[in-house]
Amino acid sequence: MSVYLHDIPLPQAQARFKQALQEAGLWRVLGVESIPLDENALGRVTAGPIWAKVSSPHYHASAMDGFAVRALSTVGAMPSTPMILSVNAEAQYVDTGDPLPDWANAVIPIENVESLDEKGQLTAEVRTPRSIRIRSAVAPWSHVRPLGEDIVATQLVLPAGHVLRPVDLGAIAAAGHQEIIVARKPKVAILPTGTELVPIGSPLKAGDILEYNSLVLAAQIKTMGGEPTRFPITRDDFELICARVEEAARDHDLVLLNAGSSAGAEDFSANVVEKLGQLLVHGVAVRPGHPVILGMLARDLGIVSREADTNIDSRISVPVIGVPGYPVSAALTIDIFVEPMLAKWLGRKPKELQTEDAILTRKLVSPAGDDDFVRVVVGKIGDKLLAAPLSRGAGVITSLVQADGLALIPRGLQGMEAGEKIQVRLYRSKSEIEKTILAIGSHDLTLDLMAQFLAEHDRRLVSANVGSQGGLIALRRVEAHVAGSHLLDPETGEYNVSYIRQYVPKMPVKVVALVGREQGLIVSRKNPKGIRGLRDLTRTNIQFVNRQRGAGTRVLLDYHLKSMTISPESIAGYFQEEYTHLGLAAAIASGRADCGLGIAAAAQALDLGFLPLFHERYDLVIPKQFADDNLLAPLFGLLADSAFRKAVSQLTGYDVSVMGNVILED
Amino acid sequence: MSVYLHDIPLPQAQARFKQALQEAGLWRVLGVESIPLDENALGRVTAGPIWAKVSSPHYHASAMDGFAVRALSTVGAMPSTPMILSVNAEAQYVDTGDPLPDWANAVIPIENVESLDEKGQLTAEVRTPRSIRIRSAVAPWSHVRPLGEDIVATQLVLPAGHVLRPVDLGAIAAAGHQEIIVARKPKVAILPTGTELVPIGSPLKAGDILEYNSLVLAAQIKTMGGEPTRFPITRDDFELICARVEEAARDHDLVLLNAGSSAGAEDFSANVVEKLGQLLVHGVAVRPGHPVILGMLARDLGIVSREADTNIDSRISVPVIGVPGYPVSAALTIDIFVEPMLAKWLGRKPKELQTEDAILTRKLVSPAGDDDFVRVVVGKIGDKLLAAPLSRGAGVITSLVQADGLALIPRGLQGMEAGEKIQVRLYRSKSEIEKTILAIGSHDLTLDLMAQFLAEHDRRLVSANVGSQGGLIALRRVEAHVAGSHLLDPETGEYNVSYIRQYVPKMPVKVVALVGREQGLIVSRKNPKGIRGLRDLTRTNIQFVNRQRGAGTRVLLDYHLKSMTISPESIAGYFQEEYTHLGLAAAIASGRADCGLGIAAAAQALDLGFLPLFHERYDLVIPKQFADDNLLAPLFGLLADSAFRKAVSQLTGYDVSVMGNVILED
Repeated sequence: MSVYLHDIPLPQAQARFKQALQEAGLWRVLGVESIPLDENALGRVTAGPIWAKVSSPHYHASAMDGFAVRALSTVGAMPSTPMILSVNAEAQYVDTGDPLPDWANAVIPIENVESLDEKGQLTAEVRTPRSIRIRSAVAPWSHVRPLGEDIVATQLVLPAGHVLRPVDLGAIAAAGHQEIIVARKPKVAILPTGTELVPIGSPLKAGDILEYNSLVLAAQIKTMGGEPTRFPITRDDFELICARVEEAARDHDLVLLNAGSSAGAEDFSANVVEKLGQLLVHGVAVRPGHPVILGMLARDLGIVSREADTNIDSRISVPVIGVPGYPVSAALTIDIFVEPMLAKWLGRKPKELQTEDAILTRKLVSPAGDDDFVRVVVGKIGDKLLAAPLSRGAGVITSLVQADGLALIPRGLQGMEAGEKIQVRLYRSKSEIEKTILAIGSHDLTLDLMAQFLAEHDRRLVSANVGSQGGLIALRRVEAHVAGSHLLDPETGEYNVSYIRQYVPKMPVKVVALVGREQGLIVSRKNPKGIRGLRDLTRTNIQFVNRQRGAGTRVLLDYHLKSMTISPESIAGYFQEEYTHLGLAAAIASGRADCGLGIAAAAQALDLGFLPLFHERYDLVIPKQFADDNLLAPLFGLLADSAFRKAVSQLTGYDVSVMGNVILED
Repeated sequence: MSVYLHDIPLPQAQARFKQALQEAGLWRVLGVESIPLDENALGRVTAGPIWAKVSSPHYHASAMDGFAVRALSTVGAMPSTPMILSVNAEAQYVDTGDPLPDWANAVIPIENVESLDEKGQLTAEVRTPRSIRIRSAVAPWSHVRPLGEDIVATQLVLPAGHVLRPVDLGAIAAAGHQEIIVARKPKVAILPTGTELVPIGSPLKAGDILEYNSLVLAAQIKTMGGEPTRFPITRDDFELICARVEEAARDHDLVLLNAGSSAGAEDFSANVVEKLGQLLVHGVAVRPGHPVILGMLARDLGIVSREADTNIDSRISVPVIGVPGYPVSAALTIDIFVEPMLAKWLGRKPKELQTEDAILTRKLVSPAGDDDFVRVVVGKIGDKLLAAPLSRGAGVITSLVQADGLALIPRGLQGMEAGEKIQVRLYRSKSEIEKTILAIGSHDLTLDLMAQFLAEHDRRLVSANVGSQGGLIALRRVEAHVAGSHLLDPETGEYNVSYIRQYVPKMPVKVVALVGREQGLIVSRKNPKGIRGLRDLTRTNIQFVNRQRGAGTRVLLDYHLKSMTISPESIAGYFQEEYTHLGLAAAIASGRADCGLGIAAAAQALDLGFLPLFHERYDLVIPKQFADDNLLAPLFGLLADSAFRKAVSQLTGYDVSVMGNVILED
């Protein structure tokens, strides 16, 4: 490849890009437009300060239904010495909002007035009695909204760079405007490139990649206040991509080229940018996302100003970003490079996530040269904020969906230890996080159902799958509210209790049964190799897939292998580990393995065969301090909830008869 | 009035409304629809759980450019004993994302491979050399993204009730969907009523009220996920309003009637609701906003199901809310009653603001029977979060614009003292609040300019106007970062220093001059009463307006009155107080007073006359502990910023020559 990919530090890449934009005269609000003041103005950014054209109220307005009077005329009125004011001459009826007569400077509320007729008798006539009797004086300007109480003509209503909210629209209207000048929306072209790409919804064959990055990017741009255009997929062809980029640059403010930003055989982006302009950066030391390209498309593309109707200089250049292909890398690249640029172009402040220190729940290794962003789920245990890392694969978009925040391992560190403080940018509010139940331990499909039911009770159940023993260890380190566990004690045939005493010896706990369930061998749909039981695992044509060390299913397997005197080494694939039942089932569905030990529901989910072998009990282990906490009350409530029990019992291989049984309570 | 307004407690009103909705079968998701999976799906709410139709990746994909191999074939390869694999039989070139051949289970990255030609010599041929030489073994599944790494077919991608974000769209696409089923948007009719209302942008005469509530309400509904329809203004006519409500109820899910919700002569809303359905609540004990009406429009309006295409029961009733007319009351009514209902109709969680405890900066009185919501600005001084109340008038929409949060004085309390803890629902993030400079003290127009300039330096300047002495008292209580002060010492003719020693005796401070400015008499444009100086204030035909006690301008006035032996009692209006220069000028512009002491800029802003009398200096007083803080650094920077100095000097009556002079530094 002619173009060399060399990662430079993030601040250096940002500075180089910013300088190029400044030199091109593009580090400023791109343009402005006048729009009607209606609900579509929501979210737009004021292009200049907004000054009041009129006052509000623009006259002295009565704040009550009552009689407008001169305050001076009421002096001396007292319960013992009432005063009579003649209507029209000294008092005039006003409704709330009515202007005061020129001569009046106060309002007496209707309920403090006695209406009198021409004979001086009480009358039911409210608005036009002959006179009124009052029994106390009023101070000047009582019950009056004076001119300018809300807004004084000429005052500043809103500054420039303000993102409009509903109440802002009211204040602008109150100040006498019916149009508003806002920054125009930057136009962003999104060009998906790649011969292997197919549009979403396409039938898939091996090698096809669903093109959904352009959808995520467009949605990000829209959220940031830009106007995205999604172009059709362009195949990996240098000339075709060049033509598309030239076309896009003509009427967009920014071109995003996704992907081809690396330095592989079919990665044309860098060459395209070099041909059509200037390549500023190829490679940024940030993970995920390092093969980023930053460049400027040159003036000889024939790009001219589209701002003839504004006071903005002619455009001579259009920035281009080569966005990496993995979805997590692509989304983070937009957050890191595009959001600050759109903020500048719109004149608003860049968006900033709330940052908090949290405690890392497990060790992370990281390339020392990179700023490394790790998706985490976050929960609060007692006073501690905990960050549990999710999958780090740049291709795993579900890790972004599940993330509560983004933790940073800064450049210069080779990783961080469990228990260390790490900075987390939060996607969620702290109040949401305070409603989070952190379940760390063995995975069971019931937990997913539970999460859905708990959402209706204002709780968020977040589960991290580290196996039964991992869960108990998390409890000991006070890093989880709940651990799901199904650890068989080979000595006693009992579940969990002896392990709890071993792993969390000093912590009082409550243990309740969640479900009984079948464990067995998950096999291909028609079980072509005729697997019948554990004995078959040693056959040379059988590829096994295992659960990770510490998983209850692994303990169960080892218990039975030992009792059958089958050595692990005799099983091909014994050391291949998966972290969830579904992951294990997927390995079999894909043909990567012939069988593995797991639960019936996982086999059913992927339409696989299942040979039931054992029954076991899956318990929830909860430290006493949390068992009595209001946070977990809805979880205990669910165990007795008939709708929840019914939903669980409909999963294949599950038995809810034990649900809610208290196994242990310290 | 036939309809009795009786305030009931908020929880009781909410419960009564909810029960009526439940009885009408309307306490649920209203309906669902299938929409294309594109960026317009942003913000919509999933109507059911979304399950994966396909796995992602749906095949074993290479994670690198390189050679797919069988891991077993590489066992034994070491630097000292390289191994040669023949291409096609034992190794096959793959690009990132390509499917692995059936027989392969690992990838060797291209950079770890030596390409050989038919003679066993190194070759530059990358993809189809005759063979490759490797110098280390690879573990099975190295550099492979196995089928289902991101998503396993059948797994839960997103639960029901999820508000869609950009990454969610990607995950749903990756899971094989191209449409998505979401809750349909509830349709909300907004009916402005009132003979006095005129559309925004209209020329105004006394008594006209700009109708902008419907704009704010529509924007709120849109923000909450509903679909608003703004109806034209209906004048106060019982039959006309009835007809409009019937029309709106026919094809909307909710009718908002604004206003006429109180019990005045022209308040028809309650009668309209009684005629067309059932009046559930008239009056809620909440301020601002108590004259709220909650009701249900009856089935005999001919309202029928519009949900024929869904599984939702026929509609028999439509809720109606009488929204109070004052803009702050209206906006809060929507937040309190409509947001939870729309949340239910959409199946999402109600929006919740972050709640924090803050310290109230001044005493508040409150009706004991009401939940009283107070708009506050919030700042952080040291470790303390402070809440400074804004205007409490229900007609002051700018108080909502300026508010950082809403503080609650709960029912049962008759008020709260300065220094008490109060719960605040924050409109802003804590990180924004941590960038807030709280200026409490004397008001000067320069502070508004400063706020605008500081916004560009990532600081928010929030000022509360309590007069110079009030500002110094706030400093003593550690409730402000900065106090603006222009207090003349009659003994010495010096500004501020003696007052600082008196009010904040133990606190080291830094005092810098901000501006020199003219003070004088603000008079009507043509000064029809021929006012020439302070001596004229005692004339019986002159109505004066004063600044509040503690204001520097008040001190200045008293100083000169004393030296001229003019008694305050001899001045009509001496005890009428305004809290800002603009407020004082507005009083004169409106004819409420003939003159007042103030600054030239305020007179100019409202096109009034000005008689210059004195020069004075306006200083910033800053406790040393904040003067050295990074928070205030940009403020000191501005004092030397030529653009800022220029902007200030363009205000009439201002002199920037003293700007930045250090008057005192402890």
